[in-house]
Amino acid sequence: MEQTFRPSHADFTYEAKYGIRNWQGGGRASARETIGRVAAGAVAKKVLVALQPAFEATAYVTQVYDLAATVDSTTVTGAQVEGNPVRCPDAATAEKMMEAIKRARSEGDSLGGVIECVLRGVPPGWGEPVFDKLEADLAKAMLSLPATKGFEIGSGFAASGMRGSEHNDAFEMREGKVRTKTNRSGGVQGGISNGEDIVFRVAFKPTATISREQQTVTAAGEETTLAARGRHDPCVLPRAVPMVEAMAALVLCDHALRQRALRLES
Amino acid sequence: MEQTFRPSHADFTYEAKYGIRNWQGGGRASARETIGRVAAGAVAKKVLVALQPAFEATAYVTQVYDLAATVDSTTVTGAQVEGNPVRCPDAATAEKMMEAIKRARSEGDSLGGVIECVLRGVPPGWGEPVFDKLEADLAKAMLSLPATKGFEIGSGFAASGMRGSEHNDAFEMREGKVRTKTNRSGGVQGGISNGEDIVFRVAFKPTATISREQQTVTAAGEETTLAARGRHDPCVLPRAVPMVEAMAALVLCDHALRQRALRLES
Amino acid sequence: MEQTFRPSHADFTYEAKYGIRNWQGGGRASARETIGRVAAGAVAKKVLVALQPAFEATAYVTQVYDLAATVDSTTVTGAQVEGNPVRCPDAATAEKMMEAIKRARSEGDSLGGVIECVLRGVPPGWGEPVFDKLEADLAKAMLSLPATKGFEIGSGFAASGMRGSEHNDAFEMREGKVRTKTNRSGGVQGGISNGEDIVFRVAFKPTATISREQQTVTAAGEETTLAARGRHDPCVLPRAVPMVEAMAALVLCDHALRQRALRLES
Amino acid sequence: MEQTFRPSHADFTYEAKYGIRNWQGGGRASARETIGRVAAGAVAKKVLVALQPAFEATAYVTQVYDLAATVDSTTVTGAQVEGNPVRCPDAATAEKMMEAIKRARSEGDSLGGVIECVLRGVPPGWGEPVFDKLEADLAKAMLSLPATKGFEIGSGFAASGMRGSEHNDAFEMREGKVRTKTNRSGGVQGGISNGEDIVFRVAFKPTATISREQQTVTAAGEETTLAARGRHDPCVLPRAVPMVEAMAALVLCDHALRQRALRLES
Repeated sequence: MEQTFRPSHADFTYEAKYGIRNWQGGGRASARETIGRVAAGAVAKKVLVALQPAFEATAYVTQVYDLAATVDSTTVTGAQVEGNPVRCPDAATAEKMMEAIKRARSEGDSLGGVIECVLRGVPPGWGEPVFDKLEADLAKAMLSLPATKGFEIGSGFAASGMRGSEHNDAFEMREGKVRTKTNRSGGVQGGISNGEDIVFRVAFKPTATISREQQTVTAAGEETTLAARGRHDPCVLPRAVPMVEAMAALVLCDHALRQRALRLES
Repeated sequence: MEQTFRPSHADFTYEAKYGIRNWQGGGRASARETIGRVAAGAVAKKVLVALQPAFEATAYVTQVYDLAATVDSTTVTGAQVEGNPVRCPDAATAEKMMEAIKRARSEGDSLGGVIECVLRGVPPGWGEPVFDKLEADLAKAMLSLPATKGFEIGSGFAASGMRGSEHNDAFEMREGKVRTKTNRSGGVQGGISNGEDIVFRVAFKPTATISREQQTVTAAGEETTLAARGRHDPCVLPRAVPMVEAMAALVLCDHALRQRALRLES
Repeated sequence: MEQTFRPSHADFTYEAKYGIRNWQGGGRASARETIGRVAAGAVAKKVLVALQPAFEATAYVTQVYDLAATVDSTTVTGAQVEGNPVRCPDAATAEKMMEAIKRARSEGDSLGGVIECVLRGVPPGWGEPVFDKLEADLAKAMLSLPATKGFEIGSGFAASGMRGSEHNDAFEMREGKVRTKTNRSGGVQGGISNGEDIVFRVAFKPTATISREQQTVTAAGEETTLAARGRHDPCVLPRAVPMVEAMAALVLCDHALRQRALRLES
Repeated sequence: MEQTFRPSHADFTYEAKYGIRNWQGGGRASARETIGRVAAGAVAKKVLVALQPAFEATAYVTQVYDLAATVDSTTVTGAQVEGNPVRCPDAATAEKMMEAIKRARSEGDSLGGVIECVLRGVPPGWGEPVFDKLEADLAKAMLSLPATKGFEIGSGFAASGMRGSEHNDAFEMREGKVRTKTNRSGGVQGGISNGEDIVFRVAFKPTATISREQQTVTAAGEETTLAARGRHDPCVLPRAVPMVEAMAALVLCDHALRQRALRLES
């Protein structure tokens, strides 16, 4: 790997940008880089709970390869998530995911998947109306995580195939508060939280480093093949759950502080 | 609309955040806000072409409601995009889209859709390795556009259902350059451009303001119904194409300037 | 002036940087540029008073050329400042300043001076401990105003000639609060406000554009002389007073909002 | 010191802001905090020299207490600065400064002073025309250093007492370049470098922590006296020289990179 670019890894682009790269561990392209994010996210969660006691961030795996879990975002708990090593609250599917991951490892291959995250207890009013929309900052935060390929909030890509009359979230009064009957908005309207659960999903590609032989080129420009050695996760999803939660908490904390600064009346 | 919150619009969240809102035109929640972005994007494109003559940004509609177009991102041209009012380069599907939009308008309803964007002529090396990954900045830029619900780059959400051995883009030498045989990475690896076309997609929800009667509440907290009046686009997709191109150009221009600043040798 | 660089103006540096310049009015190098700052400062003052009712920003001219005024920063009022056209609360010296400015104008010359600013009602705790020290942000704000050459807070340059035992502000208890007996710190210690008046001074050079003949060169690189025509202030000090107040209010408002965001207990 | 606020130190303001402080070493209020700045400044200098081989940053002590050195900023060298422990290139005055510092130490007192810095080899065009003027960023950088009370560039506060006809720097042609005969501008006009030496001065107050007895109060609000123990510099000036150079290099490096990004023609 010292001489050869791993396909779909950052080897080639780092070389192109910097003329130097850390081939042993991936350097900043390794998911190890996220340790600082997870640590900071723990602090952000404490700040958020201090500001907003009902605040809660819960992420979980909803898909590994072709295995999709059934999870109700309105009721899922952290205990359910941590109930198994793949961090999928649907225990039956979690079993199958673990088997699929083991099989992929034995075949020298890797698997993609999806993580969903629900943020509860966010009051109406967090987020900015133009560039720093809450969903925009969440999208950037998630796409800054290694191996991510997509982000969607609420209805997400499914909204593309809907009519306004079926997509719109009707308002109603509930316990004296303005609430929505459905939550296709995913808790955000016009870039600003509306008091409903914030629900988003992140797509992860299969790990780039696999031990199967792949076609590639060397740094010297010669075509070759590569079969990676060393310990490489065949599926990053279970370990990416805390990263997603951490980045979400950091984004929310920033917006909570901005909103707090803004409210002159209190 | 002065007293009543439009479902899934920014009416309620603006009221919650600011205690005041522009109900006549949506204010900053109106897509009119993007005029400045489109103007700035035109300047950004000029800067990009000055720095990188091969640079080209082309966005186009690939889906309206249940109508999906067939477009080859490697060959599509701006002329094809501008060949019809819905800005969909698949002429046959474009016809059906126009009919669907007309029907939605006559029914007082609206339609969602998808825009794809291809950025050509970007050299390897643009983008930052950690927080300001190229895809992260593109994701934020796109989710900052009104009515967007999702972003994906390259393989996107489809990557979730793949194995590493089928997802990885094998490297090869072509005309003396390191190139990939496939482009599931969407032109970005490890946050940094790899010299292939950058290809991403943005999901738009159906317009929130529709003339069909909807359940909602008033600013005073009374349940009511609302049927919007006034001129409202039943489908924002065709008019969102230049917004997507503009925001993409602004993101790329920022990264081109950063990269230019960095290269000490030239 | 279209062909010729005014000595000590931005003509040459703009030409060097941009290859183009607005010679008719100075463009962004004209003090007219500060109109937006003054408008924003008016809003910032309103926010500050809403957050901190005792807040008050008062700037005034303390020196024009060789005429130094006697002003007590602890008692000076806005009414005293606005009591004469040079905005110097020492009425006797103000008279002499006006005469000096008239004389300079008649001689085709210009005069420098000093503005002092006192910010009252700032509670302990505003400012950041490292890079964004309150005095650092004030210094940047003031040196971003046209024609400024220096900034000092509290004892300022005079501190250079002092011993710690004479410079240090002894603490004492006053009305149940920790207060300082003297205020050589100028209201800031370690980058953070200590509850005393914030007092700083800004040095302004004499206006660069004068009608006396000066040696200079043309854009084509030929040596020549220039005697400027048109209406040019022989002394910017009186008109710079609101600029100083506005920039100070903007800096303080930013720090007030940051501090407000931070205080979890309230 | 655990219970008692040192006069003119950050003890009280940190307590007011954070409710906690590091009384043993000052924490972020200690000049030890600047180690990271000096390290980063060393990298910035390397980048600057790579971009602009003639670049050179030289800072030196020009005043300690009442002892003012005679230094010619146009010829001073780093070797002269490092020629004695107080980093003052005027050897005779340096001797007296060392004696004065020793005496202050033996008396349990401390001394203020001035550092001057000259930046050579900066081409015309660095700096921004409005808020990020080169002198504004330098002022912020310097006032962010511990114990600083003032900043001035070129003529500085002396400009306040001048007439335009004596202050303006006449232009002339020298070796085919537009140059100024004098350098009261200090190398910056309208926020942008003009190719002359950038020369600025920074005022430092005497160290706050002294072993002489001072009046102060405890964290509990009781009046008391304090005589500090421990090793405390009686004069920070000699050790602040590399801090000033480092911060100057960081500011210049940022502006060099911005300018490099901007120049489309090269």
